[in-house]
Amino acid sequence: MSTTQMTADNGVNVEALLGAREALTAAPEAAQFQWRATCEWMRGTHSRSKVERFFGLGEEQQHRTAFTFDADHPEIFASEDKGSTPVEMVLVGLAGCLTAGVASVAQNRDIQLRKVSATIEGKMDLQGILGIDSDVRNGFDDVTVRFDIDADATQEEIEALVAQSQKRSAVFDIVTNPTQVTVEVGR
Amino acid sequence: MSTTQMTADNGVNVEALLGAREALTAAPEAAQFQWRATCEWMRGTHSRSKVERFFGLGEEQQHRTAFTFDADHPEIFASEDKGSTPVEMVLVGLAGCLTAGVASVAQNRDIQLRKVSATIEGKMDLQGILGIDSDVRNGFDDVTVRFDIDADATQEEIEALVAQSQKRSAVFDIVTNPTQVTVEVGR
Repeated sequence: MSTTQMTADNGVNVEALLGAREALTAAPEAAQFQWRATCEWMRGTHSRSKVERFFGLGEEQQHRTAFTFDADHPEIFASEDKGSTPVEMVLVGLAGCLTAGVASVAQNRDIQLRKVSATIEGKMDLQGILGIDSDVRNGFDDVTVRFDIDADATQEEIEALVAQSQKRSAVFDIVTNPTQVTVEVGR
Repeated sequence: MSTTQMTADNGVNVEALLGAREALTAAPEAAQFQWRATCEWMRGTHSRSKVERFFGLGEEQQHRTAFTFDADHPEIFASEDKGSTPVEMVLVGLAGCLTAGVASVAQNRDIQLRKVSATIEGKMDLQGILGIDSDVRNGFDDVTVRFDIDADATQEEIEALVAQSQKRSAVFDIVTNPTQVTVEVGR
């Protein structure tokens, strides 16, 4: 086993993450998280959501600042295009999750990253959401993510980084596997 | 069949949407859309994504403006919390999609909305993404959306609005059903 000092610096604190893994292995109840958002309808298809608080490590947590998001439909759907569409936000979440994973895995493997870019595309047949053809699903037909990575590593090492990120990605799991969603209406 | 004039105004152009449905029924190739985002790694787990162009109605389309999103991990994971987490963005997408649907369906049913709020929560056991327990999934255990709606309608009509929105929601489909995701690495 190598005891060589790490030389790569991708800005990821791997020591803290490995410490967290150790701590949560000993106290699995602290690993139970709850992520949240609130959403207010503005007008038409425009809504504004806020992300601020979450629960984890056994207590209420808070982001350093509240993050707000405008969602809307584009003008070609007779909307005002005041924000990205909700499906584009899912693509952003997937790209961000895989990219954070690439940086974390690279740090853990002592690989210096210089540039990581991803382009992501989701195909959708609008005959689904418009109710034209009930055999067409509402969501994406499929999604493609393409990474371009410049790093101090071989092509094979770079491909292994991306594969490991994919294996541990929360949003990759959410998109590729089913999740139960309960929708309730207050009285 | 009623010929009564619509009185509700939720800011949704239902006539245009019904026209689009008619047009796309006649020309289904125009219904083939491609939604996109690009993502750049900044440092650590922080990335910045941009949503600007998409393809639909047979040609390249563009939002009125480019939308940018910062994604990061929170400080309790030894990150800098420069943006919401990618999983929170998925929650925002789901809330925004269902909310736009509620407004559209309400307009189509001539129901005046006064206020629509949603709170959304996704439970996650971090033993998954941390690789502590391979039986724990990386994504959400489950998601709950709770709507509070003030409208000129009965409770049953409001519940029917939400049910119909859910039935036609792209992001609800993406989260509740599996989608194939292909991840490629450029050479």
